This record gives sequence, C-alpha cells and structure tokens, in this order.
Amino acid sequence: MAQQVATNVTWHEHKVSKADRAKKNGHKGALLWFTGLSGAGKSTVANTVDHLLNEMGKHTMVLDGDNIRMGLNKNLGFSPEDRSENIRRIGEVGKLFVEAGVITTTAFISPYRADRDMVRSILAPGEFVEIYTKASVDTCEKRDPKGLYKKARAGEIKEFTGISAPYEEPEKPELVLDSDSKGIDELAQEVVAYLKNNGYLEA
Amino acid sequence: MAQQVATNVTWHEHKVSKADRAKKNGHKGALLWFTGLSGAGKSTVANTVDHLLNEMGKHTMVLDGDNIRMGLNKNLGFSPEDRSENIRRIGEVGKLFVEAGVITTTAFISPYRADRDMVRSILAPGEFVEIYTKASVDTCEKRDPKGLYKKARAGEIKEFTGISAPYEEPEKPELVLDSDSKGIDELAQEVVAYLKNNGYLEA
Repeated sequence: MAQQVATNVTWHEHKVSKADRAKKNGHKGALLWFTGLSGAGKSTVANTVDHLLNEMGKHTMVLDGDNIRMGLNKNLGFSPEDRSENIRRIGEVGKLFVEAGVITTTAFISPYRADRDMVRSILAPGEFVEIYTKASVDTCEKRDPKGLYKKARAGEIKEFTGISAPYEEPEKPELVLDSDSKGIDELAQEVVAYLKNNGYLEA
Repeated sequence: MAQQVATNVTWHEHKVSKADRAKKNGHKGALLWFTGLSGAGKSTVANTVDHLLNEMGKHTMVLDGDNIRMGLNKNLGFSPEDRSENIRRIGEVGKLFVEAGVITTTAFISPYRADRDMVRSILAPGEFVEIYTKASVDTCEKRDPKGLYKKARAGEIKEFTGISAPYEEPEKPELVLDSDSKGIDELAQEVVAYLKNNGYLEA
C-alpha cells in the first residue's frame, strides 16, 4: 500500500493558520518590543505587562536576556555583527510566537534603529509594537541594578550603551514610556491600555 | 522620585513561571521531535497532529522548513557545522515554546543522533518526545514528493540523507511510526494516543 500512503503524503494538508490560532486564543499575536538603556526598566515593565496580560487570560511569553543569551544566542558575542545577529534571531523567534498567536514581549537594549526596523519589516503591519522605555543615562546610572554603569565608568566594560556606545532613539515608536518619572506599575498599565485601545486584546 | 522608581526596578518581580503557563493552558508544553528521511511523512504527520491537538483545544505550534529555513536559519547552509547549528537553534526555539506551555512539533530530517540528543539534553525530562518516522529509502524514493531523490540520484544534490549521507536511527525514541505501511491519519492518531496515555494533554 506504499503507493497510497505516498498519495497521502502529497495531498493531505492540515495546516493550522495564523488566523486559526488567533481565533482560538481569542486575540491576535503581537510583538511588544521594549527598547531603551540598561536600567530603564525594560525587563521589569515587560514582565509586569506579561503578568497582567496572563491574568487577563491572554497567551503570552517573554523573551529576555535570561532565556535568550544563555540559550539560542549563547554563541554570539558583542561585536557589531553579533549584536545585529542577536536582534535578528530574537525578531525571527518573536515572529514565530506571533504566528502561534502569542502576545510576546521582548526586553533588549537594541540600540540600533536599523536592527529594530529590520524586525519591524519581517512582521505584518501592526504586529510590531515598539515601546521606547525612556530614561536618562543619569537615572539609569543612579539605579544601576546590576552595577554595570559602575563597571563601564571604570572601563571594565567596553562599548557600553549610553556611556561608550550610542543609543539611537526610536523615531516613531508606538509608545514612549517615561521611566524617569513614573513607576513600574503605572508604565505597565500604559502598555496594557495601549493594547486595549488598539484592538490587540481581541481576535 | 527617580530614587523610588529605582527601588521598583530592582524589587518588583512578576515573572510568570512555566508552571503558571501550563496551568493556564490546561496542559504542559512538550517538544514533539519528528525525525526521519525526506519523504517519510514527518511534516505531514506533524501538521496533522498539530491540527488534531488544536481541535482538542490545545495550544500548539509547528516548526518546520517552511517557517525556519527562510527565517531564523536563513543564514545557515548545509555544511556539517551549519546542520548542527540548524538543529541547535530549532531545539532552543522549541525549548522557548515549551516554556510558554505550547505543544510544539518539529519536522526536520535531523539525521545525527548527537544533534537530537543535544536537544533532548537542554529540555527537562519528559519534555522531549522523539518520534522516529520510519520509512525505507525505497518507500521515500517512490514517493519523492519534491523530486529530491531524483536530483540526488542524478548527483544534482550532494550529501543527500539516505543516498549519499547517513541517517543515524534513534536508539530509544519515544515513538516509532511505521510510515512504510500506514497512512498519515493513522500515524497521527498514534501520536495523539501516546500523548494522551502519557499525561501530556493534562496540566
């Protein structure tokens, strides 16, 4: 019966589409791309947004340094090429999660406009939500939760964004979060409100 | 108030755990790793399993050549190093989907035992389900849905698995599908039965 099986292999197609997955989840997928300086609160706000959406019954995931740098991107360093490849891979993985109907947040400095625009370009219109988590170097340096600014000032970290390497501000981000003067919970609520007002939380 | 915001950045942690996501989905995540020759029916069975699980209300995703080779792994070729890196990245992405509580199927030849075992090793026990989609070269060559065997025999494709490159059979796969003598739907039902009988479809 191999011939008949062979026929099946070519003919049967049961692909579940992106639209099918969105319909089942009750909402579309989206890639919430947090960008900003180290210490601006990207990861903390992203995880809080993820938590809030999860409590609302949405299907969510967070991609951040914790699960990317030690896994998928562990063979990348910090050269300009590797930084771009780092962002490209995260963007492609984000795209797969969006295809699965998941509201995915990413929290990476992603200092270069071209890299962020590249990620935007591989997603469908509306799927990429650029969230500029804006804080002055001064604010971030005062926080310095991981002691990185101290090391950068001491020259122990080369090419540190905001100190010895550039951060290119987004030109038309979907959202700007004022992390100099607002707290985590307020900023997270702003993101959820944006998603709600722009139809992201419906199918 | 920057100081107080700074405190928030360090202190607030709202991480949604893998267990939280599984509980919400009503089932655990798992990586269903289909391996076998080109033409053995990996992708078709994988997509059918995905479709069946989706109909059952499970959260699922398929990673296959269609969405990986043109995206995340488009900068990889077919050298031994690139083949290993191809599988490594797919494994890492699969791990992220499992973390998100998604039952994820992958459909790649993945001919080397060491590569598949590497993927198994980065997942928690039970999360990696190796599904050997077993068909003879003869069966696959008769099907040849993409005309690849013909090209390989003509020498147009070098190092073609099963013809001019080795396929290392799994030693202890969780499941062996007899694709020489059974049809797509029967094989897909076997996979779903395995998952049901082994607790994969519950939280």
